[in-house]
Amino acid sequence: MTTGREQYIIGVDLGGTNIVAGALTLDGTKHLAMRSIPTNSAAGDEAVAERIVGLVEGVFLDAISETGATRHDFVGIGVGAPGPLDRERGIVLVAPNLGWKDFPLRDRIQGRLRLPTTLDNDANCATFGEWWQGSARGGRNVIGLTIGTGIGGGLILEGALFHGASDMAGEIGHTTIDLNGRHCKCGNYGCLEAYASGPAIATRAREVLVREESASMMPSMVGGKLDGITAQTVYDAAKAGDQVANEIVRDTARYLGAGIANLLNTFNPDTVVVAGGVTAAGDALFVPLRAEVRRRAFMPAVRAVRIVSGTLPGSAGVVGAVASFKQQHMGGV
Amino acid sequence: MTTGREQYIIGVDLGGTNIVAGALTLDGTKHLAMRSIPTNSAAGDEAVAERIVGLVEGVFLDAISETGATRHDFVGIGVGAPGPLDRERGIVLVAPNLGWKDFPLRDRIQGRLRLPTTLDNDANCATFGEWWQGSARGGRNVIGLTIGTGIGGGLILEGALFHGASDMAGEIGHTTIDLNGRHCKCGNYGCLEAYASGPAIATRAREVLVREESASMMPSMVGGKLDGITAQTVYDAAKAGDQVANEIVRDTARYLGAGIANLLNTFNPDTVVVAGGVTAAGDALFVPLRAEVRRRAFMPAVRAVRIVSGTLPGSAGVVGAVASFKQQHMGGV
Repeated sequence: MTTGREQYIIGVDLGGTNIVAGALTLDGTKHLAMRSIPTNSAAGDEAVAERIVGLVEGVFLDAISETGATRHDFVGIGVGAPGPLDRERGIVLVAPNLGWKDFPLRDRIQGRLRLPTTLDNDANCATFGEWWQGSARGGRNVIGLTIGTGIGGGLILEGALFHGASDMAGEIGHTTIDLNGRHCKCGNYGCLEAYASGPAIATRAREVLVREESASMMPSMVGGKLDGITAQTVYDAAKAGDQVANEIVRDTARYLGAGIANLLNTFNPDTVVVAGGVTAAGDALFVPLRAEVRRRAFMPAVRAVRIVSGTLPGSAGVVGAVASFKQQHMGGV
Repeated sequence: MTTGREQYIIGVDLGGTNIVAGALTLDGTKHLAMRSIPTNSAAGDEAVAERIVGLVEGVFLDAISETGATRHDFVGIGVGAPGPLDRERGIVLVAPNLGWKDFPLRDRIQGRLRLPTTLDNDANCATFGEWWQGSARGGRNVIGLTIGTGIGGGLILEGALFHGASDMAGEIGHTTIDLNGRHCKCGNYGCLEAYASGPAIATRAREVLVREESASMMPSMVGGKLDGITAQTVYDAAKAGDQVANEIVRDTARYLGAGIANLLNTFNPDTVVVAGGVTAAGDALFVPLRAEVRRRAFMPAVRAVRIVSGTLPGSAGVVGAVASFKQQHMGGV
């Protein structure tokens, strides 16, 4: 059915705090009606599903009024959600941040909006989005890390999103970099996430400030209450030249560099894209990170890769959810 | 050209100590004329290439006399060699165990034997062989570890051998499991290989025996000369009930378990195949190894995987070199 009219796919990125949605043209180049609402996860799974439906209805109306499209010009909906999940059955198996267990999100949305709908992992979608329309464009074997409250990951291998045997591939935040290291909330010890997630960065900063007398500006930035220190406090202080904060950022780079070097020696990717709040530290992060990767990985793998910052903050998940819909329903992106 | 006659591919596995070769039917089910000679790497790259040519000529003759085939029934030669290498150009870039640098092995063999020839990494081939004809059969996403002097690895993703951007994928032995850990001969710290390779197992045994007075039988097994302890000494002593040796095997399982758990959380494979001398320890290794993986990896990834011992000792590399020829020249295995 080629009508000559432009067609659209809706992307939805469901997070613990916000839901973001928007419409993309099939080729991904035009982004329309991007909008965001709070998740309100306390209201429960069914209520959140209804919020998604309402948000998507709003995207339809906006996109239609922006373009003159009709409802028939929308071919489907791609949804990115926290995992683990079962793509084939469209079920979110466990989502601690949402308080969900075995929730059939895909069918709820498909049933209400009467459009083909797909489900995929949110970190997979973020990586897929950066590959399709962002800084990882042109890559064939791409690894994405999204660093926030946790560290999510996604793998694109031979140009397709890789899911593994049970949709669990890409849990890069939960790879061990120190066998006997810090306890991680996943139960394991020494996970990358226990060192380099936003909360882990803040924890390491507080530990240093409690332990050492220093001239750091960080305590005064939070009114003397060390509990108020977040990763953002560290990036801001580092940018202002604070030595302690810069050391924390360098350590973060070292941990991330070790984790990324493991991925280079295992996957030999052409592109690694790092996204999330931590990239706000800019060169203060990326320069020592690349140096650590060079130190730890094999040279032919180092030479083959570019390590870049994500360029679609806020929308990578939506763009990637659309790409995932295309991969699952239209045979490729 | 379907003549109705059986066709054959030759596989070659070039190691630092021995060269193994044999002929397989296209479907891989019949293995013919398997034979092995010493590598004699001291003679230099050209001389080793000639030894391979001579070995393959012998395989031709044997296979022909066994089957009544003619030279025209052989469609090509697959070679597995230590890496890093450049598959497309057929060049071994660096092989420390052979003393090679930038040696065009594929064209040397192809030029002399006048049959299409392919080159691939030896650890990739070993994994591919176990997948095609051994214990990893039926898997779609398979990770192989071959534990000997080093720890080699291979990845089969969506049913095809995965090489990465520059043929470096699968260097699992050189993934960091302890950021500040043992120095590895690759220059990095805390690599899996620095803990769980054959020589690393022997080193850890010697360290314990030097440090602690114990009732271990290992010193007497090597005439009191601790330098004589090898990984095999440890497996033999463990089998005989030696406590110290069993502790070394359990630690090995712990290190390998951490490395494999990282692979589960990253790739979510359906099969992990462990091959090489270390598997001689049997359940003493595999029981605690599986337990460590369960402790460290996510349950949906643990449930999706089987962790098995290789079943083609000695021939996995040859079988996999044939499979790699098929993938590169015949569009699939």
